[in-house]
Amino acid sequence: MHLFYTPDINGSEYFLNEEESKHCTKVLRLKEKDIVYLIDGNGGFYKAAIAVISGKKCLLYILETQKYFGKRNYRLHIAIAPTKNIDRIEWFVEKATEIGIDEITPIICQRSERRVVKTDRLVKIAISAMKQSIKAYLPKINEAQNFNDFIKTAHSALKCIAHCLPENKQDLKSIIPSQKEVLILIGPEGDFTPQEIQQALKNNFIPVTLGESRLRTETAGIIVAAILNQLSS
Amino acid sequence: MHLFYTPDINGSEYFLNEEESKHCTKVLRLKEKDIVYLIDGNGGFYKAAIAVISGKKCLLYILETQKYFGKRNYRLHIAIAPTKNIDRIEWFVEKATEIGIDEITPIICQRSERRVVKTDRLVKIAISAMKQSIKAYLPKINEAQNFNDFIKTAHSALKCIAHCLPENKQDLKSIIPSQKEVLILIGPEGDFTPQEIQQALKNNFIPVTLGESRLRTETAGIIVAAILNQLSS
Repeated sequence: MHLFYTPDINGSEYFLNEEESKHCTKVLRLKEKDIVYLIDGNGGFYKAAIAVISGKKCLLYILETQKYFGKRNYRLHIAIAPTKNIDRIEWFVEKATEIGIDEITPIICQRSERRVVKTDRLVKIAISAMKQSIKAYLPKINEAQNFNDFIKTAHSALKCIAHCLPENKQDLKSIIPSQKEVLILIGPEGDFTPQEIQQALKNNFIPVTLGESRLRTETAGIIVAAILNQLSS
Repeated sequence: MHLFYTPDINGSEYFLNEEESKHCTKVLRLKEKDIVYLIDGNGGFYKAAIAVISGKKCLLYILETQKYFGKRNYRLHIAIAPTKNIDRIEWFVEKATEIGIDEITPIICQRSERRVVKTDRLVKIAISAMKQSIKAYLPKINEAQNFNDFIKTAHSALKCIAHCLPENKQDLKSIIPSQKEVLILIGPEGDFTPQEIQQALKNNFIPVTLGESRLRTETAGIIVAAILNQLSS
């Protein structure tokens, strides 16, 4: 299956851009009348035929359109502290996209060693993972925000903070089945500070645990995506 | 918490080896009477004090011993095709160890592009993940085996094969709660062949699905570890 990401698709024809046209004709060696598939990152999945190959451009005719392709019955937003080693947060973005996620916000916390994130690189990773796993929805990746600013403005039916302090916490999997819109905060190496946790509670975040294991930041993120994926489907 | 992996611990004293003694005294700058913690990879968790630092050796006195530290109430064995890009299977070993797993067998399948795995490197990764997540059990990592040999000899109360063919499959999460000993096969890029699946069914493996998403090999492995972790606890 030859899949292209076409966020600007509109109408019954589509011109692949120069890079993708080249990929289509030179790398994949596709010809006129060959079939390709398009995803718009917003739930649209299209079957198309190559109509004309002319110079550096490929014109496609849209043959079939499917809306809400693979739409999930829940909405998950993870706000996560970027890891010191950037590979780890990139892995998280790739895996969470494969498993299923709607929105990711990097949050800069008191104990964050990394305070800068290139979100355009994370978007590229998400696009690649979306294509690889044949999904039609691209998660929204926000610019990094400070923890304090984020928790004051963030909205969701269910808001949780996953932290490691030995306090009274609910088991995430026990509160998920009743909620289909979830926002969860995941802290940096060294966890959230007690002040941050207090601040989150004041803003109506519920403290949750993901189980007995001490998990790295990016693993906690994957576990959350997996729990939602398994318990909501 | 200063944690050392001491698989050969036995009795009330322990000599750290030269490398770990050096780490203890030169890097961590620990002194006599300082407290360290030891894990033996077999459920033993020990509190110890540095008794004597002499030349290149550290002698420890064991102060407290805990057996079955963090023992889980299930046993999980994942037999997984090594990925073409070795980073991906290494990542699986790290994350599965963090989340909880007992045994990993690399299986070489008909469509495996990678047919050789350095298991000693995977063991090192598992040790590091075990320490990082403060676990006392080290997963057993077997040498790679051919798929056909493996499925004929492998034992487990519940044996499953996760594949992507559109056949009648059970949802893994629906059959887990009744079983506490699970072996699951995960295929290579391009999936198991229909013949391999047939062969597995003949050997009493149950075909299962991990949900709607098309997952990469290593992601499927993590999802299995996460499902067991969440549904068995």
